[in-house]
Amino acid sequence: MRAFVLFMCLSVGCLAQRPQPCASPPLLTGSLSVSTQSEKLMAYANYYYDALRRRIRLTEFGSYNNKTFHLDVLLLYREGVMYKMNYKNQTCCKKPLSADFHPLEIPWNASLLGQVVIGSSSGPGQGVLVNTWEGELQMKEGPAKYMSTVTEFGCIPVSTLFHTIRSGWMVTSFFNNVIGLVDPQQLIPPHFCQGAQLEERLDEDPVTFFSLF
Amino acid sequence: MRAFVLFMCLSVGCLAQRPQPCASPPLLTGSLSVSTQSEKLMAYANYYYDALRRRIRLTEFGSYNNKTFHLDVLLLYREGVMYKMNYKNQTCCKKPLSADFHPLEIPWNASLLGQVVIGSSSGPGQGVLVNTWEGELQMKEGPAKYMSTVTEFGCIPVSTLFHTIRSGWMVTSFFNNVIGLVDPQQLIPPHFCQGAQLEERLDEDPVTFFSLF
Repeated sequence: MRAFVLFMCLSVGCLAQRPQPCASPPLLTGSLSVSTQSEKLMAYANYYYDALRRRIRLTEFGSYNNKTFHLDVLLLYREGVMYKMNYKNQTCCKKPLSADFHPLEIPWNASLLGQVVIGSSSGPGQGVLVNTWEGELQMKEGPAKYMSTVTEFGCIPVSTLFHTIRSGWMVTSFFNNVIGLVDPQQLIPPHFCQGAQLEERLDEDPVTFFSLF
Repeated sequence: MRAFVLFMCLSVGCLAQRPQPCASPPLLTGSLSVSTQSEKLMAYANYYYDALRRRIRLTEFGSYNNKTFHLDVLLLYREGVMYKMNYKNQTCCKKPLSADFHPLEIPWNASLLGQVVIGSSSGPGQGVLVNTWEGELQMKEGPAKYMSTVTEFGCIPVSTLFHTIRSGWMVTSFFNNVIGLVDPQQLIPPHFCQGAQLEERLDEDPVTFFSLF
């Protein structure tokens, strides 16, 4: 019995030494940038992420096919609706959201590519220890490879590379992340959205960065 | 006089608040990866960097035009020679090195693009504060844009994006950097290089990642 306990302790100890796939904190606020290999899409966004109530708010601007765009969306996955807001004109579009909520996490079947320090471990505040994971996802258009980097402490997202044969690489870099919701109200539809009628979906679902995770 | 001193102190104080272009530590050991937008070049290297004696050692492997390569070079800028070594066969090529030594630093005329936290500042060990600088260099083939990210504390290189109209983006990511030389001997030509004759340069200078900084 003693030997068994010792074996279990050692196993757990060994497992603990190797980085494990992890889930990011359920409440996060921060910024991200997205760019594609083709330079077709370049975007910068502020995000609010609430995995507890399955809500995401993205305020983004960028360029797609050399045209600039601005997008302010609130994705409420539990209700299955998406609000596209324009604060300047105080207008609001309410659309059905059929996509599943994908939490920010490393899939359990991801493979550890490696653990490195970004910056340096030689002095305080000079670096951060991160783990990079890779794997493959089955998408409608075929298999897609991903490479996700998160911090060892806290499982904070750092970057995600997503590769499909059709589109090449797409890189999402996260930064200025804080644990918690800096302004929870950003995840509640604004007053001018109250009267918005649910539009029938005629066009395709918008591409959300998070649908890729 | 007192007003002048106060003014000077305030000026220096204000300047100190804004990140300033900086030079990385003169002795660094670490790893880096290089990839180009075209996916033509993908390489991984261990590096030794000695700005005091102007020496660089690169042990790299990767692929160029879908062909794998392995390169082990020692660049001695003071002597103006480069050793291309093959430890397996114990062979050594000695070539003239005409390129200037470019220290790892942010050029004084670079513009601050922004300061962000990679990871999170919400918990200890979860993130690192970095500054991103951009600028333009005049190259033989025309102007080239660069974007360099270094840590706020220690000026440790994090990544460099280099863009030319002809080749598109080239990204160099640094990691596992430590201040100092882990093995100073790596910067001394090995014994089997002692008899090497200086070859006349017939081909072009090899592309060194550091010639881009």
